[in-house]
Amino acid sequence: MSVKKELLSKDNMAEWYQNVIAKANMAEHSPVKGCMTIKPYGYAIWEMIRNELDKLIKKHGAKNMSFPLFIPYSYLSREKDHVEGFSPEIAVVTHAGGKKLQEPLVVRPTSETIIHESMKRWIRSYKDLPLKLNQWCNVVRWEKHPRLFLRTSEFQWQEGHTAHATEQEARQEVAEMIEIYYNFMKDFLAIPTIKGQKSEKEKFAGAVDSYSVEGLMPDNKAVQMGTIHYLGLNFSRIADVKFVDEKGAENFVYMTSWGVSTRLIGALVMVHGDDKGLVLPPRLAPTQIVIIPIGNTLDFAQKLFNTLEQNGLRVELDARQDVRPGAKYFEHEMRGVPVRIEVGERELNNNQIMCANRVTGEKTTISLEGDYVQELKNLLQDIQNTLLQNATQKLKSSIIEAKDKEDFINKIKNQEGLVKACWCNEKECELSIKEHTGANTRNLPFDENEKELKDCNCIWCGKKAKKIAYFSKAY
Amino acid sequence: MSVKKELLSKDNMAEWYQNVIAKANMAEHSPVKGCMTIKPYGYAIWEMIRNELDKLIKKHGAKNMSFPLFIPYSYLSREKDHVEGFSPEIAVVTHAGGKKLQEPLVVRPTSETIIHESMKRWIRSYKDLPLKLNQWCNVVRWEKHPRLFLRTSEFQWQEGHTAHATEQEARQEVAEMIEIYYNFMKDFLAIPTIKGQKSEKEKFAGAVDSYSVEGLMPDNKAVQMGTIHYLGLNFSRIADVKFVDEKGAENFVYMTSWGVSTRLIGALVMVHGDDKGLVLPPRLAPTQIVIIPIGNTLDFAQKLFNTLEQNGLRVELDARQDVRPGAKYFEHEMRGVPVRIEVGERELNNNQIMCANRVTGEKTTISLEGDYVQELKNLLQDIQNTLLQNATQKLKSSIIEAKDKEDFINKIKNQEGLVKACWCNEKECELSIKEHTGANTRNLPFDENEKELKDCNCIWCGKKAKKIAYFSKAY
Repeated sequence: MSVKKELLSKDNMAEWYQNVIAKANMAEHSPVKGCMTIKPYGYAIWEMIRNELDKLIKKHGAKNMSFPLFIPYSYLSREKDHVEGFSPEIAVVTHAGGKKLQEPLVVRPTSETIIHESMKRWIRSYKDLPLKLNQWCNVVRWEKHPRLFLRTSEFQWQEGHTAHATEQEARQEVAEMIEIYYNFMKDFLAIPTIKGQKSEKEKFAGAVDSYSVEGLMPDNKAVQMGTIHYLGLNFSRIADVKFVDEKGAENFVYMTSWGVSTRLIGALVMVHGDDKGLVLPPRLAPTQIVIIPIGNTLDFAQKLFNTLEQNGLRVELDARQDVRPGAKYFEHEMRGVPVRIEVGERELNNNQIMCANRVTGEKTTISLEGDYVQELKNLLQDIQNTLLQNATQKLKSSIIEAKDKEDFINKIKNQEGLVKACWCNEKECELSIKEHTGANTRNLPFDENEKELKDCNCIWCGKKAKKIAYFSKAY
Repeated sequence: MSVKKELLSKDNMAEWYQNVIAKANMAEHSPVKGCMTIKPYGYAIWEMIRNELDKLIKKHGAKNMSFPLFIPYSYLSREKDHVEGFSPEIAVVTHAGGKKLQEPLVVRPTSETIIHESMKRWIRSYKDLPLKLNQWCNVVRWEKHPRLFLRTSEFQWQEGHTAHATEQEARQEVAEMIEIYYNFMKDFLAIPTIKGQKSEKEKFAGAVDSYSVEGLMPDNKAVQMGTIHYLGLNFSRIADVKFVDEKGAENFVYMTSWGVSTRLIGALVMVHGDDKGLVLPPRLAPTQIVIIPIGNTLDFAQKLFNTLEQNGLRVELDARQDVRPGAKYFEHEMRGVPVRIEVGERELNNNQIMCANRVTGEKTTISLEGDYVQELKNLLQDIQNTLLQNATQKLKSSIIEAKDKEDFINKIKNQEGLVKACWCNEKECELSIKEHTGANTRNLPFDENEKELKDCNCIWCGKKAKKIAYFSKAY
């Protein structure tokens, strides 16, 4: 693998992003327009994300299942906003089994409508509630400007769908899922996010309220990392999903839905990567430690590998004979392996190992006489912490304010940061902002301060402000 | 849950099968014709199968990845047999993103053609070989007569695709995968299968040779549990997948593909289930042990639950207050939970537990003074062994021979067993057999005996026999 270093300056984010994904062998555009092929290394990262988040979703009480790939077109069109929102993006099967279908089938862009059809049959009484379902699957939303992981016509995701007896319980579900996603991004991806409500313009087609956790990329464009929707009775009224309560009365159920997708990998690449390539947080790295034997140390390296593997570390031994150590360093740095262990003859003779930290570049010597497995685990934890600290520091310093409308326009257009501003909370105002700056509200944060809003006017239209909002362009 | 016992006689397999799947809450037909909804309990079984087989596939050296859901129609049509074989079953996307597509896209019925397109770009030299890829995904083959798990228009599966430098290596890959599948069925599903080659008529569209592991159901219809294809150069020539060998010469790669699907769950249901419902082999049971407290023993039961869970057993505590113990027994028997532990006040006072074996119905008392965790693990292993022994005994006793053509027809039509017979190995003869009996060859077993073939004529056409073959109807 030959990597030209000049192709990897993070200053040019778009080019850098493509290069890292190509050179770390993560994914590529497929011959099918807008769809991607996720290669083994990219897919191993997705498996890590999926396995860890799946544990949290199961612990939360949702059960995995599998609903059909296809949705009858008539289902999608029952909810007016929903069909309007998704129509421009859908792929439609018109022929199957050698015949034209009586009713076209939509390849699911999201599964609310087909899942609610099942819920209608499964929910009878309050004893069946809450009902919390989840599926890991592929969905299709036709994409004119595909970007690997961030926007592709087909993508992998998980979608949770829940039904509750009361609004309060459904709102509680939303609050819990926001926390689960927020903590997952923080604890596993080492990415701090901003929790908040989506504006009317940006909310999910058919939802009463939508919420998101938003991550900020180094070029000050945002990535919506996860979304959580309070659907109220909108969908249950249409699909006729009712339950009999404890008093024998029939009521509609309150619903939510929530999801994260393979775009998380795109954010992971951008937030942590550097001019040497990918940097993976140890908790999600398919390979946490790579061991590189130098000289006549293969037996020693193999024993070390066995010990680390037995202790639950995800470790790789790169014993290739036809690749020089320097080239191996370069390659594993590109792949973002958090720790590289070099074992040369000096290390062998002194019964020690040399550990290189992918984030700081520091090298430390660890003696094999002591509890070196624990020391390596500590080193991995340090790296995980460092990544989160760096990203948190970067996010804090990137939240900026604008003096006036002109300053707002400049800061948005120049991508100077995530602009926090007073806002009127009106859809038409946001449409105007989008038209003039290319930006939307990212979300309206939960931690807004009433004081901040006092005597504050909308940064754009000048009316009395109703909300604090974050603005930036987005992936 | 109320279950009418008379609906569960295994003598009427078709009705029994539907009832078990419905009452054990495993899956149901979806409103989309031919597609199924896999419910949480059915999906948990699929997750167990997937996780265990995935480990074996990774150990075998194949790497997981994700290829697009859609395949350009032109790709599929490059291989003549391939497109002829799959055309009647494909679903076609003609419109996407609000426009008619220039070229229709096929929803993948299998991914050879799109994966080979990538292999062409990824393989340069002998150093890139062997290349072993696998994906767990959904595929679509339009089905006129859907049956839950066994035949559905959309199904979940894994498909492995490999490329090799020589025919010998590719044949070796086929042999290894046959063994991996055979052992997986035996060791995890507790289902003995017959390894063999598919006939010309029954082989995969586009393969040089196809192989299968076939399971026999209690009604003497077969289920093809896994297939393994030697593709030779058929697809590499068409997709132009070449490599430069050690001498610098350019050659086509030799290919294989192999897969198993959610139909394994259908076989699992039929082979092990009984008149009480589902019976799950402990190695794949989402719940291996259910604890039922009776009377004032909840604390005791909870402690037991904690200990068993900490020791890696998949255990459930059914502490519902509004359901009587007898109803719980009935329900967990229906769900096929291998071991039920009853803890009443007598058990509490004697510091012991009562364990009911789902397969034999036997109840044994285990003292909590001894190593009861190990005793429970032994009990689960016993159950796993018993299921395999029973199924092996059943398979052996179901392999029968026919005296003559008339006897052959009767035995096949009456589903008296898996008929082993001498056969001419000609496609036209098989077409005639199919037309008159509704049966095909299942496969041509590896363990055929030359002696058996000596002086043996085809059971159907009377010509000199060339092979021993197994015949039966199939799901």
